[in-house]
Amino acid sequence: MVSLVHVELAMGLPLIYNTTSGPVAGKLNVHLVAHTHDDVGWLKTVDQYYSGTNNSIQNVAVHLILDTVVAALQEDPNRKFIYVEQAFFQRWWREQTPRKQNIVKQLVNAGQLEFINGGWCMHDEATTHYIDMIDQTTLGHKYIKDQFGKVPRCGWQIDPFGHSAVQGYLLGAELGFNGMFFARIDYQDKLKRLNESTMEMVWQASRTFGDSAQIFTGAFYDFYYPPDGFNFDFESFDTPIQDDPLLFDFNVQERVEDFVTYAETQASHFRTNHIMWTLGGDFQYQNAHGWFKQLDKFINWVNKDGRVNTFYSTPSIYTDAKFAANESWPLKQDDFFPYADCPHCYWTGYFTSRPALKSYVRLLSNYFMMARQLEFFVRRRSNGPNTDTLWDAVAVSQHHDAVSGTEKQHTANDYALRLSIAFSEAEQLVNLALGCLVERANNSICQHAGISFSQCPLLNLSFCPASESINNFNGSLVVLAYNALGWSRTEYIRIPVNSKFVQVTDSAGVAVPAQLLPVSSITKELRRKYVQGYLGISSGAAPAYWLTFPATIPALGYRTYTVSTSEKKGYTSASTSEVLPQKTAVTVGPSSLKMDFSENGLLSAIIDTDTGTNVSMQASYFYYEGHTGSDGQGVDGAYLFRPTANSASFFNTFANVTIVTGPLVHEVWQEFAPWIYQVNRLYKGKDYAELEYVIGAIPIEDDVGKDVIIRFTSSVGSDTSFYTDSNGRDFIKRIRDYRTDWKLEVNEPVAGNYYPLVFVGFCLCAGELLGMYLTDSKNEFSLLVDRAVGGASLKNGELELMLHRRLVYDDNRGVGEPLNEMVCVGSSCEGLTVQGKLFLHVNPSGKGSRWRRSGGATSLFSFTACFHKLCWLKTGFPSFLWMSNNYNLPENVALIHPAWELDDGHTLLRLAHLYELNEDEELSSKAYVDLKKVFPNRQVQSIEETSLSANQKKSEMKAPLKWKVEGTGEMQQAAQRGGPIDQKDLIVELAPMEEIRTFLLSFR
Amino acid sequence: MVSLVHVELAMGLPLIYNTTSGPVAGKLNVHLVAHTHDDVGWLKTVDQYYSGTNNSIQNVAVHLILDTVVAALQEDPNRKFIYVEQAFFQRWWREQTPRKQNIVKQLVNAGQLEFINGGWCMHDEATTHYIDMIDQTTLGHKYIKDQFGKVPRCGWQIDPFGHSAVQGYLLGAELGFNGMFFARIDYQDKLKRLNESTMEMVWQASRTFGDSAQIFTGAFYDFYYPPDGFNFDFESFDTPIQDDPLLFDFNVQERVEDFVTYAETQASHFRTNHIMWTLGGDFQYQNAHGWFKQLDKFINWVNKDGRVNTFYSTPSIYTDAKFAANESWPLKQDDFFPYADCPHCYWTGYFTSRPALKSYVRLLSNYFMMARQLEFFVRRRSNGPNTDTLWDAVAVSQHHDAVSGTEKQHTANDYALRLSIAFSEAEQLVNLALGCLVERANNSICQHAGISFSQCPLLNLSFCPASESINNFNGSLVVLAYNALGWSRTEYIRIPVNSKFVQVTDSAGVAVPAQLLPVSSITKELRRKYVQGYLGISSGAAPAYWLTFPATIPALGYRTYTVSTSEKKGYTSASTSEVLPQKTAVTVGPSSLKMDFSENGLLSAIIDTDTGTNVSMQASYFYYEGHTGSDGQGVDGAYLFRPTANSASFFNTFANVTIVTGPLVHEVWQEFAPWIYQVNRLYKGKDYAELEYVIGAIPIEDDVGKDVIIRFTSSVGSDTSFYTDSNGRDFIKRIRDYRTDWKLEVNEPVAGNYYPLVFVGFCLCAGELLGMYLTDSKNEFSLLVDRAVGGASLKNGELELMLHRRLVYDDNRGVGEPLNEMVCVGSSCEGLTVQGKLFLHVNPSGKGSRWRRSGGATSLFSFTACFHKLCWLKTGFPSFLWMSNNYNLPENVALIHPAWELDDGHTLLRLAHLYELNEDEELSSKAYVDLKKVFPNRQVQSIEETSLSANQKKSEMKAPLKWKVEGTGEMQQAAQRGGPIDQKDLIVELAPMEEIRTFLLSFR
Repeated sequence: MVSLVHVELAMGLPLIYNTTSGPVAGKLNVHLVAHTHDDVGWLKTVDQYYSGTNNSIQNVAVHLILDTVVAALQEDPNRKFIYVEQAFFQRWWREQTPRKQNIVKQLVNAGQLEFINGGWCMHDEATTHYIDMIDQTTLGHKYIKDQFGKVPRCGWQIDPFGHSAVQGYLLGAELGFNGMFFARIDYQDKLKRLNESTMEMVWQASRTFGDSAQIFTGAFYDFYYPPDGFNFDFESFDTPIQDDPLLFDFNVQERVEDFVTYAETQASHFRTNHIMWTLGGDFQYQNAHGWFKQLDKFINWVNKDGRVNTFYSTPSIYTDAKFAANESWPLKQDDFFPYADCPHCYWTGYFTSRPALKSYVRLLSNYFMMARQLEFFVRRRSNGPNTDTLWDAVAVSQHHDAVSGTEKQHTANDYALRLSIAFSEAEQLVNLALGCLVERANNSICQHAGISFSQCPLLNLSFCPASESINNFNGSLVVLAYNALGWSRTEYIRIPVNSKFVQVTDSAGVAVPAQLLPVSSITKELRRKYVQGYLGISSGAAPAYWLTFPATIPALGYRTYTVSTSEKKGYTSASTSEVLPQKTAVTVGPSSLKMDFSENGLLSAIIDTDTGTNVSMQASYFYYEGHTGSDGQGVDGAYLFRPTANSASFFNTFANVTIVTGPLVHEVWQEFAPWIYQVNRLYKGKDYAELEYVIGAIPIEDDVGKDVIIRFTSSVGSDTSFYTDSNGRDFIKRIRDYRTDWKLEVNEPVAGNYYPLVFVGFCLCAGELLGMYLTDSKNEFSLLVDRAVGGASLKNGELELMLHRRLVYDDNRGVGEPLNEMVCVGSSCEGLTVQGKLFLHVNPSGKGSRWRRSGGATSLFSFTACFHKLCWLKTGFPSFLWMSNNYNLPENVALIHPAWELDDGHTLLRLAHLYELNEDEELSSKAYVDLKKVFPNRQVQSIEETSLSANQKKSEMKAPLKWKVEGTGEMQQAAQRGGPIDQKDLIVELAPMEEIRTFLLSFR
Repeated sequence: MVSLVHVELAMGLPLIYNTTSGPVAGKLNVHLVAHTHDDVGWLKTVDQYYSGTNNSIQNVAVHLILDTVVAALQEDPNRKFIYVEQAFFQRWWREQTPRKQNIVKQLVNAGQLEFINGGWCMHDEATTHYIDMIDQTTLGHKYIKDQFGKVPRCGWQIDPFGHSAVQGYLLGAELGFNGMFFARIDYQDKLKRLNESTMEMVWQASRTFGDSAQIFTGAFYDFYYPPDGFNFDFESFDTPIQDDPLLFDFNVQERVEDFVTYAETQASHFRTNHIMWTLGGDFQYQNAHGWFKQLDKFINWVNKDGRVNTFYSTPSIYTDAKFAANESWPLKQDDFFPYADCPHCYWTGYFTSRPALKSYVRLLSNYFMMARQLEFFVRRRSNGPNTDTLWDAVAVSQHHDAVSGTEKQHTANDYALRLSIAFSEAEQLVNLALGCLVERANNSICQHAGISFSQCPLLNLSFCPASESINNFNGSLVVLAYNALGWSRTEYIRIPVNSKFVQVTDSAGVAVPAQLLPVSSITKELRRKYVQGYLGISSGAAPAYWLTFPATIPALGYRTYTVSTSEKKGYTSASTSEVLPQKTAVTVGPSSLKMDFSENGLLSAIIDTDTGTNVSMQASYFYYEGHTGSDGQGVDGAYLFRPTANSASFFNTFANVTIVTGPLVHEVWQEFAPWIYQVNRLYKGKDYAELEYVIGAIPIEDDVGKDVIIRFTSSVGSDTSFYTDSNGRDFIKRIRDYRTDWKLEVNEPVAGNYYPLVFVGFCLCAGELLGMYLTDSKNEFSLLVDRAVGGASLKNGELELMLHRRLVYDDNRGVGEPLNEMVCVGSSCEGLTVQGKLFLHVNPSGKGSRWRRSGGATSLFSFTACFHKLCWLKTGFPSFLWMSNNYNLPENVALIHPAWELDDGHTLLRLAHLYELNEDEELSSKAYVDLKKVFPNRQVQSIEETSLSANQKKSEMKAPLKWKVEGTGEMQQAAQRGGPIDQKDLIVELAPMEEIRTFLLSFR
């Protein structure tokens, strides 16, 4: 070898490098994957990363990456590069000349530039909702399809901090991916996998889909950076190949030796003679030429050496090579949570970090779904307000340093600002659309509406100028409530008013029962501070009352209610509430659901007399003290959860309580600490309790970070297992102090048992959800959350949720800031206060799915309330419903993208079956949706089923690769799927599984 | 303006930038000069800088600069870039394909890539010899001429730490430069110049050349970096233009405003409506694309704004624009030394830093001159040993962080290694050439010689295996002494031998007087340690004696002497010496020159009985303690000299003395401290004293850095003025605590009075050298140094030289290391010991020039001694002389490049007149060189006079631009120049000035 190299060099400069190589049978093949990992916001904002401003924080300008990569690829047709984040690529693309765009198209067509993953960002997997994951992926895939006619072939979730089942089965095969790659798995898991050569596997993340949604999955040998010593980015100090024999420090032999040694060591932990090197990292390739120059040299000299074979490759090429090897792979089920990278370093803090941002993302995701429906009803306009900006903003916020809460504060502010700007545009659209619909201007693009609506985004703070104007001397207000779900339903609307002589009537002028409630002092204080903080204006005097009334709205439709002062004769005033400080044990509840509180002010039981459920239950607040990392190990920080002790501290053994009762709603107001409040709320006719908490500012004057939890201690006879959702879609069984894939060494008995909860939060259920067997326990206990949080069941019968955190140390995972969120009003700043809701349900064993899936879940998707001041008119507007009269979707189907007009004129429709096999006796069955009834006013010209991200026709998608799975113990169950749709009868069939079907429709 | 920008942007992306602009009359024109400053070694070695190895020290790979700049220039024909350092460019050039080379040629022809300065490096100006400056410039210019047919048009000495007169007049107009630019001038000078708009000037650095060698010279407004806020290199955090209106942080207006404001402020300190921005810095443009992208944007948006006009430019274009403005400029004479960048920050330490490296550079520069002569005599071979490597190594070492001593230790080691490797090759060449000449094989390319010579580079350590083999029982040795100067002369040869029965005979067999001297214990100790340290071998037993004898060698020729053991009858043994410890006052000297030593062992007087000069003189060693910078100001370091006190500390008020006498040489050995020794040496027939010092290891156990000086306190009646050389060529009058150009505020009375001395070291002369007037003082006192040192005359009659320094703190000017040179033998390291020589001469006033210029100076260019073991043969070889028999050059002319065969077959000849006008009564006259006698054996076919760097014919050079000079006080003296050479009679005429004439010859 040595002599060969020297012979070559003696032939003289200039050196021309041979980079033409590809896989060679019988040799160890090292696939060189040149890549850059471009966070869509983290230490800097997404635009700062793109444009290179604010470089003192991080020296990054993504436009230079794309500029220089494209130039470097042009230099040598053998060079390859993968690009991932479309949020950046699209910023770049529209700045390019047509000439440059053509060059890029040629590079893409030649396979030199390949889009991998291809979403708008690389979404988080723990704190994201599956609909948002699909949406942001759809956005990216749409551009790739539109501009290049390409579909990404592999998943590339290299950085997210753990990996979800939904990612594995839904954002994998359903997108047409052949492979999925990532870097972060638990260090204990990784050690075992390295020892057993099981770093690469077949992941069947859906037990019911089985192998029909399996995906070849690879965890990297050593993170997603280059092997030690082979990083040639501009800030690296690794030794380049110096192959000019006329200069000092000639080192071809040493560097080739390093390469071969590393490759052979890595290969000893992997199957087949193909291994992958990830040659890149965070924001690398800003000077792509330098990187590729070194890679050219390595390919040339290593292949001349001949012991191993190396070449430019991509994950797709690598996956194909793996498949062609016809090897058997280990099976992996469920997910990869939680993630730990050392014994006391569990990345379970970010499940809760930045709870307000997490809430905002969820709210706007819901709003986005609603706004898209209205946009479809009134026809999309390309100029003027549309939902594109909101699509972008919600997609950006799915990034794994956005909704995850692991970004710097100024970047979090930027995400919120983007969402806020996008909301404002969508709000305009919604107001306009409703005005148009009220004027019956649908079915053509509505440009103006005579009737103008307004909304109250700060309604939760009791701030709503439109409804507050209802005082003793003022006129009427039309409240329009829009129901974005596919089922007619009744929910309570709650608005602030300033008169106790108010009446609510429906659009027929019939009085509707209503109740006035007092506004608590804590609400008033939040209103005062946060309206000033967010809007920069004074909130004025707090309103006198909350007015609440039930509204019953058809599916995909609205109904209006009129709220007017009722001093005049004949008006039926709203009921008032009775307010009493509590002294003794008490039972509340206007309907069959009752809550018992003991004399110390704490919850003691929940009883549903309808179902005969009676569960003893305590609910109290605790906090964990954050570890400082003084022992050189984990720090309680934005990423990590590490309490100093394995037990949490009580705030108080009692609560100060106020009882509010009336005909429609009972409330129990609890004060656990001067900065922890909770309202327990039971509505007439509702079988669940609503728990509204206010937490903050968490005191840290003692320089101790605090993770605040609520803990429910119940008589539900659970064992060590409990269930958490995966991105709001599947349920995953969790077992305390246990992992399916390896024998867990328990180092963090609290943090290591925390799991992410997203939507259908949490369940302590007796028996397996899949109905394999039943225990002797009688009851189930379920919780829904309104945003992503972390939670655990640390004792049998117990559930805890981490609701807020305020920390004082950075946890050394890159963000470089302690997670200490502040809100400033003028120059006065204090820790963030968080307001949120939980929904609590108890039922006999096996009966909870229906509530979790269809019933209670709808509470989380509240009506959109819009307001129109009527002045002297007395009645509201006629109601509206999009679908055929009285048509509802089947209870087990959700219209997750009910109708979404894309910029190419197609309408995207996504339907999801909501039940897993055997989850519910009745609803885990096939469901049918009649599209003629969904679109009664528009005639479907054609309908085409597509991949999940709508970037390829289902009929033209290649069948997923059939990977051989080791062993025979796991039966591959034939997946049930709905049949093809008939273009004439337009009935969509959905199988009782996690199936989501996506269609592109054209209307006549 | 604001609205214009917005209109433009509203037209949509992609943005195409208009970069076509050029100078516009009537507007402020901002010349954007994109450049990179690439140190030819500093924190890393030259090859490490080139190849990007050792990047943890500094993140630099120069090949990426050239790669990416060339790519960026291709992207837009309006873009321009200047490149300076040919040492890097040539490394890059030979690695390029012919295709890429053609692209570069096109860029050069189009003026997009312009070579500026164009030497091999950007040489230091304080510590370099003018011959080396010319040589390294010639090397770079030669490549530029050969490859591109171009000649650089401007000087660009942006980084050197002060600027010399030789640079100003010789390396300026004589190279055909129109302008000269740099960044570093004294902060007091700069303040005044900014206030008076005299940053740009006409520099007439030669008083005798006057305006015939003047050059337009600009000092930069704010260093050579970009204006504050406009640095867009990859490691800068300055805010780029963000002009995408769809992204956040759009900032076109603010950035344009910043640009205009800065430009207008700068313009208020400069004349004409043209200003220059230096857009680049140390090793910038590794990702040139990013830089140019921002510059494109600025040109586009600033010109759209319209208040100022900006465009891509170069120093040449800028100079032309300045000239076209027909403005008058202030006159600048003399030089820019010393340089201070703050009140206690005088860059006068580097005049002495790394004295051993400075010596090595000087030695090999001399050796290079000699080797080139021999190479010419035996014809150059392109393969096999030649002087190319030495040319490169000596050129590299002229860099302003090389011989200056301001590089990191490992880089200093690299320079030494390069010199050593190059020396080895040249040594082979010399040995071979002498063998060939001895065999009379000249005039055809000599490939082999039967007679092999060896040399003894460590002769100063008494290490010479060839001569040490002369012991009582061994045969004879031929000593060949080569005289590279143009005059026949007699010098003493000194070699170690191991027999006291030795005889020296000339080539005719005639005995030559010789003297044996004892080898001092300090020499033996140095030999023991440093032979081991440098060669890694044991030096063996120290030799018994030094043998010295006078050799008389013709100009450009050699003569051989035979040294043989003389036990046999009829031999005349060398004389032995008498060795006595001194107890009382004593006078020594074998000839008319006598030195008086007092009973305390110190020098008390020097008397030359021939000239009747009697000068009272003390010479002692002192040291300055280095300032730690504890006051937040200057630190005594590699660059800066800053003593803690304004007085130096004595080592001792007496010296231990040993007297050695004999017929040929008298020596007085002095020990001033256990680590400071000096030998005072007076040779028979020589009118100067040789002072050989050994200093080191300087103790720093007390954590105090020390600057060691020798101070001569004499009765010479000087005033505050004294004379130092400029790069070994001119003399510059210095006046203590005074600057010609501004009223000096004296903050550092010691460091601020230090000046660089290079060769013809130093002179305390009564009266102006130019003979304007005489004082009543009787005597002159001159010192020659064997390497660059710093020195001062802090009191009348006093001279001091800083000979060695060992420091403990870094002085915050970038090198990041304290200057603490160590030498290791095995694992044992100690501070560096330095051995060197001074030559001391006294004479009646006005008579010293001849010694300094012609006489004593030759001592510094010692004979090259080569050795051939004769075994039993008894006689040497015939002598050789190149020039016509008995032809010597005129005493006032030096053959500085006597004959140098270039790789294109041409022979380069450079002749220099050695005397300034009026310097010597007799020798400051026109001189004539008869080339027929210089080349008696080769027939000159053609001769062409060229520019100094031989890159353009004198006849085709444009006349220097005639700049208007402010005021009329300074008479522009018509410069005397030698007339054109006649192709037939071949007599070169040289005027009595600094004139150096360069010719390219072809021989038949």
